[in-house]
Amino acid sequence: MSLLYFGSDNSVGASAPVMQALQEANAQGALPSYGNDPFTARAVDAVRRVFSRPAEVFFVPTGTAANALALAQLTPRWGSIYCTQEAHIAVDEANAVELQTGGARLVTLPATGGRLLPETLHKSLTEGSADRPHNARPSVLSLTQATEGGLVYSPAEVKALADIARTHRMKVHMDGARFANAIATLGCDPADVTWRAGVDVLTFGASKGGVLQAEAVVFFNPADATDFDYRRKQGGHLVSKSRYMGAQFEAWLQGDHWLELARHANAQALALADGLEKLPGARLPWKPEANEVFCFLARPVH
Amino acid sequence: MSLLYFGSDNSVGASAPVMQALQEANAQGALPSYGNDPFTARAVDAVRRVFSRPAEVFFVPTGTAANALALAQLTPRWGSIYCTQEAHIAVDEANAVELQTGGARLVTLPATGGRLLPETLHKSLTEGSADRPHNARPSVLSLTQATEGGLVYSPAEVKALADIARTHRMKVHMDGARFANAIATLGCDPADVTWRAGVDVLTFGASKGGVLQAEAVVFFNPADATDFDYRRKQGGHLVSKSRYMGAQFEAWLQGDHWLELARHANAQALALADGLEKLPGARLPWKPEANEVFCFLARPVH
Amino acid sequence: MSLLYFGSDNSVGASAPVMQALQEANAQGALPSYGNDPFTARAVDAVRRVFSRPAEVFFVPTGTAANALALAQLTPRWGSIYCTQEAHIAVDEANAVELQTGGARLVTLPATGGRLLPETLHKSLTEGSADRPHNARPSVLSLTQATEGGLVYSPAEVKALADIARTHRMKVHMDGARFANAIATLGCDPADVTWRAGVDVLTFGASKGGVLQAEAVVFFNPADATDFDYRRKQGGHLVSKSRYMGAQFEAWLQGDHWLELARHANAQALALADGLEKLPGARLPWKPEANEVFCFLARPVH
Amino acid sequence: MSLLYFGSDNSVGASAPVMQALQEANAQGALPSYGNDPFTARAVDAVRRVFSRPAEVFFVPTGTAANALALAQLTPRWGSIYCTQEAHIAVDEANAVELQTGGARLVTLPATGGRLLPETLHKSLTEGSADRPHNARPSVLSLTQATEGGLVYSPAEVKALADIARTHRMKVHMDGARFANAIATLGCDPADVTWRAGVDVLTFGASKGGVLQAEAVVFFNPADATDFDYRRKQGGHLVSKSRYMGAQFEAWLQGDHWLELARHANAQALALADGLEKLPGARLPWKPEANEVFCFLARPVH
Repeated sequence: MSLLYFGSDNSVGASAPVMQALQEANAQGALPSYGNDPFTARAVDAVRRVFSRPAEVFFVPTGTAANALALAQLTPRWGSIYCTQEAHIAVDEANAVELQTGGARLVTLPATGGRLLPETLHKSLTEGSADRPHNARPSVLSLTQATEGGLVYSPAEVKALADIARTHRMKVHMDGARFANAIATLGCDPADVTWRAGVDVLTFGASKGGVLQAEAVVFFNPADATDFDYRRKQGGHLVSKSRYMGAQFEAWLQGDHWLELARHANAQALALADGLEKLPGARLPWKPEANEVFCFLARPVH
Repeated sequence: MSLLYFGSDNSVGASAPVMQALQEANAQGALPSYGNDPFTARAVDAVRRVFSRPAEVFFVPTGTAANALALAQLTPRWGSIYCTQEAHIAVDEANAVELQTGGARLVTLPATGGRLLPETLHKSLTEGSADRPHNARPSVLSLTQATEGGLVYSPAEVKALADIARTHRMKVHMDGARFANAIATLGCDPADVTWRAGVDVLTFGASKGGVLQAEAVVFFNPADATDFDYRRKQGGHLVSKSRYMGAQFEAWLQGDHWLELARHANAQALALADGLEKLPGARLPWKPEANEVFCFLARPVH
Repeated sequence: MSLLYFGSDNSVGASAPVMQALQEANAQGALPSYGNDPFTARAVDAVRRVFSRPAEVFFVPTGTAANALALAQLTPRWGSIYCTQEAHIAVDEANAVELQTGGARLVTLPATGGRLLPETLHKSLTEGSADRPHNARPSVLSLTQATEGGLVYSPAEVKALADIARTHRMKVHMDGARFANAIATLGCDPADVTWRAGVDVLTFGASKGGVLQAEAVVFFNPADATDFDYRRKQGGHLVSKSRYMGAQFEAWLQGDHWLELARHANAQALALADGLEKLPGARLPWKPEANEVFCFLARPVH
Repeated sequence: MSLLYFGSDNSVGASAPVMQALQEANAQGALPSYGNDPFTARAVDAVRRVFSRPAEVFFVPTGTAANALALAQLTPRWGSIYCTQEAHIAVDEANAVELQTGGARLVTLPATGGRLLPETLHKSLTEGSADRPHNARPSVLSLTQATEGGLVYSPAEVKALADIARTHRMKVHMDGARFANAIATLGCDPADVTWRAGVDVLTFGASKGGVLQAEAVVFFNPADATDFDYRRKQGGHLVSKSRYMGAQFEAWLQGDHWLELARHANAQALALADGLEKLPGARLPWKPEANEVFCFLARPVH
């Protein structure tokens, strides 16, 4: 028996509207670089409209960069970041968070399907000792939406977790590499599952959702973004020809295009899950809620 | 009087063949991610052919990342990197090198137009004390080709500098953000001004030379590239949909397209310089050799 | 009910022979600094004799420094260090390891009384994915001897764990803040429970064992110590007047003085444990094997 | 001809009162560790009295640690620290500042005898470009008192430099490894040449001035010291048996003992300088003002 993961959303190309936008951005001739172009400005506005919030928005080329830079903004290097054992930041980013934070610790908590339960977080935070300056200081809670296991947090679930974090004076980060898929499932206002539920900063991923390559770091409270421009530059994540990331994001967000793409991906995942369940010896550990499907298969089928 | 810099090669778009290649890469449907696609493989081969060398080649999204990651590969954090006072790594990258190296020091040397003289390097290296473990250990020489001032090193000049570095057991890095412009001026075999002259690693820039966004780190000695895949990932510089960087680089290098673009840029720079020199009160501190023009102008003209 | 810890071995002063040695070192007048004095040289020899091995030995002022610097020598920043959930490096050193390594991850494993079982290590190493370059690379196993819970590893137990580490191409570090207490309990040759059992580097603690302030980092394979002098200096852990640390260590190791002090501390711990067990409502979670006693007490007794 | 440096203040032992205090501290039996003992508390008070200021005071084992930790408190990692080319932090600390700050840059300015002139600082700060976020942000001015060349800044000279720094929103650090020698020469109130002249944090060195091993980081504005306890611990610079550093500092500062020792060292340096000047072919580049003597000697004399 083995647990299989089906489908990689990094393996497909960009949508036609995104490619079209790229062409148009290219046709503009000379434009200011390093984010001072109109495409970037319009993309920032588009993100703000999605969240009904005058957020500070920064585009970066990779999700790993987005997560690590965002977290580095919220924790001192003697801090700790609470996440699940399956968290992408803990497992799949080659210690990028530790590098960018200068040494913060990831505290990894057990979770089924990657969805952290409030009681698990509460227990870990109250049981740990807080002997200053010996113990790292709990500084950030990082949630993944949709989770690495393909599950989705409701606004109430996010709020319950964020409230615990707030009690311990921690900030809340959301790794939204598949945020579009989560919103497509939830059908809620993106604001309800982010800043209204207590999220301080969101890694808003588009690369897995239909663009070539672009991610946004969205600070819902401008004060949290102080000097982030320096941090992004020092990390090597300020692209010179920013117009292209701007154009991709603008086209992706226009007219709910991002949600249509996500609904389509989610539907495909559900269809795959249905098909798998009918195989002899197959079992799904949980029902997929976004665009990821995990399945136990008997060896011969696999 | 003030010294002005004309023209920003980051402000223009990508060439038609590059945009065409991007479209074609997008039309391929699902492809492996993280560099395991055929576009990336062909681009690596193209770079190797340019340099007549089985180099290790890694694509990253920005020049700052390329420089910082390459240098981090060559120096311990208690090492020092010798460069000019004008070097982009010293002035314009927000301490990216210090971050990626974990604390290496940049030793900045005087140079006219950004072109380092062998005697300046020799003097600095022989006059400095080498009291172990108190003094940082000279570890890398970093040259910019073409220089930040728009000048070009000949193969013999690179070799003279690299020989001094070698004597002091230092490695040699070349920041080639405008490498294409230098080759267009020199008209030489790219190998002659890099590994045959003693360069260990090249930051091979395409973003300023006609693509959307792509840079390559080229290790001429594979041993220097050990574990660089981890370093790039930890830095947040491994893009998931690598096919796009591969497609850009492949198209850019095909049939000397990169050199044609560079020749055109260089010619425009020379024409601009000629025009400027005819202005009353204008004076060029040095004749441009690539695609950057600096000029002293009397205030009213400016 | 609460778990109590009795006694802090940092709270007592230095032994008479150590204080005497300090006085004598001070009476010597001018001596070379930064480790080039005869006291340091003799202390290095004394450590080598203890371990019957031409080890590379470096003195540093704190145990946190000793652990972090030693581990930084053995792992790249994209590596991971396996230890127990109770490990001092994981809990009580404010992310010192993450800082010195530049971002390595601590993987914390469950263990009773801080003593790691081979099957726990084996399971963790074989179950984890090893998808390069996304997952951190397992690089070091760190064992604490005596453990944070007051237990001791036998030579065979160390070897069993080190063998697993070796299979996964990992190095082995031993945090020996209470190494003296462990040897006093085991009664074995110090070499048997370190390098002969597969330990590559030992943090050999004297501060908790009877000196004012001094720890040694002991590399059993000289190649592992390459450039450690730079690392110690860059960390701010090279003391100028090294003679004092040398004098303390020399006196502490002379004629088994270190083991006599440890035997006395262990005996006191056992006596305390015996007394506690007789209290109504008290329960020891495990029998102390070194100089630390943990006890569950009913609230009224506490 | 060669420039020689006479005398190393790290090569001599501790004074009798300091050794006596150490013995007394050791005789106290069990005391709280990690700085919570009465010796440390009294030493903090003693430092505060020296500076007539309720400063935040932290003891650390080495001067390199004191400098690097203090500077890390005052600059972001994308900041730059202005100092002289001869500065100990730039030349003799193996990039410790870069490590602790996470990558801040040292900008090294020319200075005769290590004494920085206001015009040199002003010129560097006004000529450098400040193109955010590309250029590192000037964040700290670091002065050495007495300088590495054996010269002393008057209160007015410190103020002139600090005023320039303040204009550029920079903080001011003083490396006072030989602060005692400077005060012995100046004969002024220590407050006048530190916080009253604009210094924010002082590395107050005792190791070169008559103790075994102890340095203090003195924050004149408590807000600058926020979380410094974590920083010191993470750096591995929180000693467990803090009583010994406390005892040393208390005895050293008692009844002007520190200044008597410094006056004696200064007088010896002057006598040496006088003798050297009488040698045929000898020339002092500048008259020593503290306890360091530099001299040009014709080869045969040397």
